[in-house]
Amino acid sequence: MITIKEIQKAAERIGPYIHRTPVLSCQTIDRQAGCQLFFKCENLQKVGAFKMRGATNAVFSLSDDDAAKGVATHSSGNHAQALALAARLRGTRAYIVMPSNAPAVKRAAVAGYGAEIIDCLPTLQAREETLNQVVVRTGAVFIHPYDDEDIIAGQGTAALELLEDYPDLDMLMTPVGGGGLLAGCALAARATNPHIRVVAAEPSGADDAARSLDAGRIIPSVNPDTVADGLLTSLGELNFPIIRKHVDSIWTVDDEAIIAAMRLVWERMKIIIEPSSAVTLAAVLNRPSETADQKIGLIISGGNVDLDHLPWSN
Amino acid sequence: MITIKEIQKAAERIGPYIHRTPVLSCQTIDRQAGCQLFFKCENLQKVGAFKMRGATNAVFSLSDDDAAKGVATHSSGNHAQALALAARLRGTRAYIVMPSNAPAVKRAAVAGYGAEIIDCLPTLQAREETLNQVVVRTGAVFIHPYDDEDIIAGQGTAALELLEDYPDLDMLMTPVGGGGLLAGCALAARATNPHIRVVAAEPSGADDAARSLDAGRIIPSVNPDTVADGLLTSLGELNFPIIRKHVDSIWTVDDEAIIAAMRLVWERMKIIIEPSSAVTLAAVLNRPSETADQKIGLIISGGNVDLDHLPWSN
Repeated sequence: MITIKEIQKAAERIGPYIHRTPVLSCQTIDRQAGCQLFFKCENLQKVGAFKMRGATNAVFSLSDDDAAKGVATHSSGNHAQALALAARLRGTRAYIVMPSNAPAVKRAAVAGYGAEIIDCLPTLQAREETLNQVVVRTGAVFIHPYDDEDIIAGQGTAALELLEDYPDLDMLMTPVGGGGLLAGCALAARATNPHIRVVAAEPSGADDAARSLDAGRIIPSVNPDTVADGLLTSLGELNFPIIRKHVDSIWTVDDEAIIAAMRLVWERMKIIIEPSSAVTLAAVLNRPSETADQKIGLIISGGNVDLDHLPWSN
Repeated sequence: MITIKEIQKAAERIGPYIHRTPVLSCQTIDRQAGCQLFFKCENLQKVGAFKMRGATNAVFSLSDDDAAKGVATHSSGNHAQALALAARLRGTRAYIVMPSNAPAVKRAAVAGYGAEIIDCLPTLQAREETLNQVVVRTGAVFIHPYDDEDIIAGQGTAALELLEDYPDLDMLMTPVGGGGLLAGCALAARATNPHIRVVAAEPSGADDAARSLDAGRIIPSVNPDTVADGLLTSLGELNFPIIRKHVDSIWTVDDEAIIAAMRLVWERMKIIIEPSSAVTLAAVLNRPSETADQKIGLIISGGNVDLDHLPWSN
């Protein structure tokens, strides 16, 4: 069971390897939203995403013997880059299984951090089989992107830092995909302040977490369709009970609102956030009566976008 | 004469109204550059540019009587937005003379800060005549964008903060246009550390400052041609002697290098910087033998770009 203790230990463990990211605010957006927003900028984290926290915690939690064998995962997203860099910092190897159609820029980033890329066909079955082969061949430790206690504890350190800087928030919001960030941050926030409201934001085209919370059981994400490509996965088994216990609501928003919120942040705050990061602000702007005059912390999850294909220039 | 005292007073005066901007670093870019870079992020300043510092210092240095009459300038750039917001914070009016062909997004930003926009024909003569008429009609105080001691002292606070955070820099770099940022920062840096090297970066298509420093007199900028549209102006009369005294060199870089450096920062640091901000990094990457292993502070001047027309998507 993860508690605030594991999150505090994670913060200590990963402190030397990650950025303590800045918390930014913007009066123009506050005025538009009718509340006070505090953006915890994990897009400015190493590898451009909060995933660096969990991956670093997982890799540095390994025994020396386990670490020596290396780590492995299948991912074409931010977890792949994070695991690659965390492994390099620990002085070991990372094996990343990537679908053969993954964008060249993502492959280059993972390779740039010194990881070994293993190609597979672009299906979930091929990914999992290839990963198994890699693990059998190398003895590397599989690090799941979200359904893992060390990952959850690592991601929770983002909320821990935010609440150290701003202890009197009324509300904390994160996006939700697999639920690692949400579960870790919800735990950290509630332990720090039992009265804080914890709300997740989710694209309406991938609203499996909202439906899962309603139903009281994990409803898998089937054929999700949203610009927020970091939020397509289903909730993890370990994440769901934490989310049920500590999350008050999940608010869904459509892609049009997500893209508008993303552009608003780019234009007014001068930071690059990916669509998955914009769902929280989009949700706040959508619910003025539920957010009015509140002090709200938003975890900006990442900033990895293809600069040649921006969602407003299609 | 401006000294470090005026810059320290400016820091105290504007402290409540501006952001203390974060200093970011990026190991990937450091590795590529072969040195340690510390980016002072004035793109994350209010109105998205360091211009907020000088404008706020100038507006809050006015007597109550003068302030009551309002302030005026002619500009379509960051100084216009900064003066508009500074005037609002002081509780007075700003009159901004703008050429009739200024982009709608810039007009909207200035109007959004509550300033009165006065249209003029897009020539320097029309701007100056219209500004004179506004000053005569309203009694407003003209605040020059760079050739002004309060402006220079205000801009110098960016370097003051950076050197408070990182006192042991070997070198400080800023872009140079009219020279307000460069003069203020050079003064602040040399007063804090007499041995620090101060270097400016300039587009080769607008290299009037480099030629002025060589010639020992101000050589006006004639038909400048560069993507760095914040650096087109000639050096100011007040700025030049400070720059001659305290600046070691001015390095020029071509537009191709500026755009590549801009894109590198967007991709790896996840912050939005305008082309004028990228000249310093471009210059560092161009001069590996002169920057190797140094600790270098770069003032990132601003982040105001047209997101529908990025320089790499033409």
